[in-house]
Amino acid sequence: MQRHLISAADLTRDDAVLILDTAEELARVADRPIKKLPTLRGRTVVNLFFEDSTRTRISFEAAAKRLSADVINFSAKGSSVSKGESLKDTAATLEAMGADAVVIRHHDSGAPHRLATSGWIGGSVVNAGDGTHEHPTQALLDAFTLRRRLVGGPGGGAGGDLAGRRVTVVGDILHSRVARSNVHLLTTLGAEVTLVAPPTLVPIGVESWPCEVSYDLDVVLPKSDAVMMLRVQRERMSAAFFPTEREYSRRYGLDGRRMARMPEHAVVMHPGPMNRGMEITAEVADSGRCTAVEQVGNGVSIRMAVLYLLLSGAGPAGVPAPAPAPATTRSPEESK
Amino acid sequence: MQRHLISAADLTRDDAVLILDTAEELARVADRPIKKLPTLRGRTVVNLFFEDSTRTRISFEAAAKRLSADVINFSAKGSSVSKGESLKDTAATLEAMGADAVVIRHHDSGAPHRLATSGWIGGSVVNAGDGTHEHPTQALLDAFTLRRRLVGGPGGGAGGDLAGRRVTVVGDILHSRVARSNVHLLTTLGAEVTLVAPPTLVPIGVESWPCEVSYDLDVVLPKSDAVMMLRVQRERMSAAFFPTEREYSRRYGLDGRRMARMPEHAVVMHPGPMNRGMEITAEVADSGRCTAVEQVGNGVSIRMAVLYLLLSGAGPAGVPAPAPAPATTRSPEESK
Amino acid sequence: MQRHLISAADLTRDDAVLILDTAEELARVADRPIKKLPTLRGRTVVNLFFEDSTRTRISFEAAAKRLSADVINFSAKGSSVSKGESLKDTAATLEAMGADAVVIRHHDSGAPHRLATSGWIGGSVVNAGDGTHEHPTQALLDAFTLRRRLVGGPGGGAGGDLAGRRVTVVGDILHSRVARSNVHLLTTLGAEVTLVAPPTLVPIGVESWPCEVSYDLDVVLPKSDAVMMLRVQRERMSAAFFPTEREYSRRYGLDGRRMARMPEHAVVMHPGPMNRGMEITAEVADSGRCTAVEQVGNGVSIRMAVLYLLLSGAGPAGVPAPAPAPATTRSPEESK
Repeated sequence: MQRHLISAADLTRDDAVLILDTAEELARVADRPIKKLPTLRGRTVVNLFFEDSTRTRISFEAAAKRLSADVINFSAKGSSVSKGESLKDTAATLEAMGADAVVIRHHDSGAPHRLATSGWIGGSVVNAGDGTHEHPTQALLDAFTLRRRLVGGPGGGAGGDLAGRRVTVVGDILHSRVARSNVHLLTTLGAEVTLVAPPTLVPIGVESWPCEVSYDLDVVLPKSDAVMMLRVQRERMSAAFFPTEREYSRRYGLDGRRMARMPEHAVVMHPGPMNRGMEITAEVADSGRCTAVEQVGNGVSIRMAVLYLLLSGAGPAGVPAPAPAPATTRSPEESK
Repeated sequence: MQRHLISAADLTRDDAVLILDTAEELARVADRPIKKLPTLRGRTVVNLFFEDSTRTRISFEAAAKRLSADVINFSAKGSSVSKGESLKDTAATLEAMGADAVVIRHHDSGAPHRLATSGWIGGSVVNAGDGTHEHPTQALLDAFTLRRRLVGGPGGGAGGDLAGRRVTVVGDILHSRVARSNVHLLTTLGAEVTLVAPPTLVPIGVESWPCEVSYDLDVVLPKSDAVMMLRVQRERMSAAFFPTEREYSRRYGLDGRRMARMPEHAVVMHPGPMNRGMEITAEVADSGRCTAVEQVGNGVSIRMAVLYLLLSGAGPAGVPAPAPAPATTRSPEESK
Repeated sequence: MQRHLISAADLTRDDAVLILDTAEELARVADRPIKKLPTLRGRTVVNLFFEDSTRTRISFEAAAKRLSADVINFSAKGSSVSKGESLKDTAATLEAMGADAVVIRHHDSGAPHRLATSGWIGGSVVNAGDGTHEHPTQALLDAFTLRRRLVGGPGGGAGGDLAGRRVTVVGDILHSRVARSNVHLLTTLGAEVTLVAPPTLVPIGVESWPCEVSYDLDVVLPKSDAVMMLRVQRERMSAAFFPTEREYSRRYGLDGRRMARMPEHAVVMHPGPMNRGMEITAEVADSGRCTAVEQVGNGVSIRMAVLYLLLSGAGPAGVPAPAPAPATTRSPEESK
């Protein structure tokens, strides 16, 4: 694996499977009497957030702390960054303070890439969402959730863990970094992705993406193993893009009636937080087929795996099964 | 003890005494060379604050860290909560992230109760103040302070540790969760409570509360073992409730002259922060009879006890006396 | 050493050298497999910040965590402090909560001194910048950087480590706590300091300071071993003090042409964040002679040393050289 995680598009199938398998092992830590591994003791993870995102920030924070890393939260608001300090100078500051990993959320597409390739910092950079570009750990936790729900855990066939699974992504594809990262990762893992969106919210050039595009949700649903509903950013739902919320909901929202068109084994995903009554009804959100809450939990496991693989310099995690013994990690050979 | 701490009214006398005795033991940790116990290592405590309250937040944070728990601060401001996420979805997020305890401060009376009884989360819920309802750890630290000052520590007579002690609570009873929690807890512990307030700031239905009501502070003072001065919320002191600050201070404030009417052993309590010159003069606030600062320190011990009892699944704490040996906990039997 | 660190002016040469030597030893922790010492386990460091300063706050936070202390961040914004709580009551709260050290940043010159001398708290007070008064850890990290760059590490001659070195400080001396602390500390360590500033930005009474004053940067540069460029506070560059930013930059800014007038061994310092194009050009900022980034890293080592010396009650740090053995500290005798 590379030293940074900037884009789901950078991940080979082997990279992705390694992260998913490692997350599967690290998820077991939650079953231990002491829900913590000493693996990253003495390492410092900085959460550098230029946009508010409490959910993503505390997910990384929980993941890092469960690996015994020290966490420093650096919100760009009210900092010298907001007084005009450049990303370069901020990076140099964090580097000089000994940050082993910088988890960055930024409103500009490309900021994490710039941070990682500039040579400004020696530690690892993890993209926690940049503009409308990518949100790779979200895609990884989505794939992890799909694998658990549809395939039944680690391992999987020759063509990839999600080979042949059909995933439909619904909503504002144009502005969605979640959609972008998922298209890349899911196809790398062998899934077939279909995007469903209002015509005004489909990106130009989507023809070159490795996926199908449809404008009719009802037609796609019966052929989906999973339907991923994107969050509507109300501030973007201006008249320019779509007439009214009610109309959006009617054509692209998921309600019980529509869910009934899905195959019985198919699941409903949502990155959260959900706008109940908008892109998803409460009935669907609260049904056993909706994985929104699982996705959050899986997010911590995925972020543990990413930090572990980037920072420990080790191979697969090798977390022992729950036992009252003190926390240790085994070598990759032993953990087979 | 139950799995949550929502209301002082829920605590039996045995519950309350267990918490107070446990806090007494845990207070000894501060005398150890390493002021920390490993008891909650690997547990995650989330401070979910919908209202700013730095003092309460850092008290819980210090308590949790002294027990080696990981602490994640979740301020609802700037989070998706402020974008309209429901309490339910926030709860599900924290649950999925593996929160073992959620310490919640909320402007709505009843929010912690809803969180605890909804089945949304599997961990413990601790009420850190909800609307005008309750603030149970404040009442516990007040009782702890009273027991130390008036009774002389743990143990106590058959009728309850504070049996027969007379406690007077003065101020805006109508809006005070501190008053409400104290009335419940102190009477459970056998004390006799008298409320003193301007008529407009006494709640309707107070007749059914297990306490006396008076409108004349000077008459009550000589019969009080403790006088608890509530903080004046200036924003609530509108003309509707009371004419002027000066008039309030004259009739319900505690100054040196009034303090002299109290029995010699009686103490003055305040939950802080004090409005010197308003409900309390600087002379009284700084006298040796005012326990405001002790109360803050006792707050950490009480919150350690609550987190310990809710999360460790153990009985009484059993903290060994100060010694240079490594930190361990003994079983309830050994600690007798 | 005293119990507090309020002012660089309070430090004897022996105090200062002890801090610098201790920082030199603690800097080695970054080379260890586990970049952490157990020295301050169980101690609580509170960052009490009345002014936003993310850089200084996270430097102290990183330093404290690297020594295994618990850190609690207390931003005065939104706290009861902003509702009018006095510094005294805030101090009493932190003391009661068991703060072993309070790192304070305050807009009022003298606030840390008041905190330290009031008897309000029993722990140590560290001044992290107060008004236009002092910022002693900044001066210490500057001296540390100078010693490493100009003298070649710990030890040094009879007259002091920086004896005879010529340091020029350039910019808004009038409002700069960094300048004030550096004048005191550098002269204590034997250096010769020259201040260069627009006449309106030189403090009244500067004649009594142990340094020279000049108004012509070009004349001073060839005689400087180090030139310290202060950050321009744009909000203070009103017409009253100086005509225009462009004019300031032309007369007091450091560009490549000016840097060429400095001796070959001389370095350029900046406390950060830099206003590129204002007091320093990008060319100078990014040159190998500019120590701005090193200063940030040295800041963590200096703050570790200060916390270590104030809180551990020990002598010099005695950090063993990098080795895979578990972290321990040796006695001063052993570490010779």
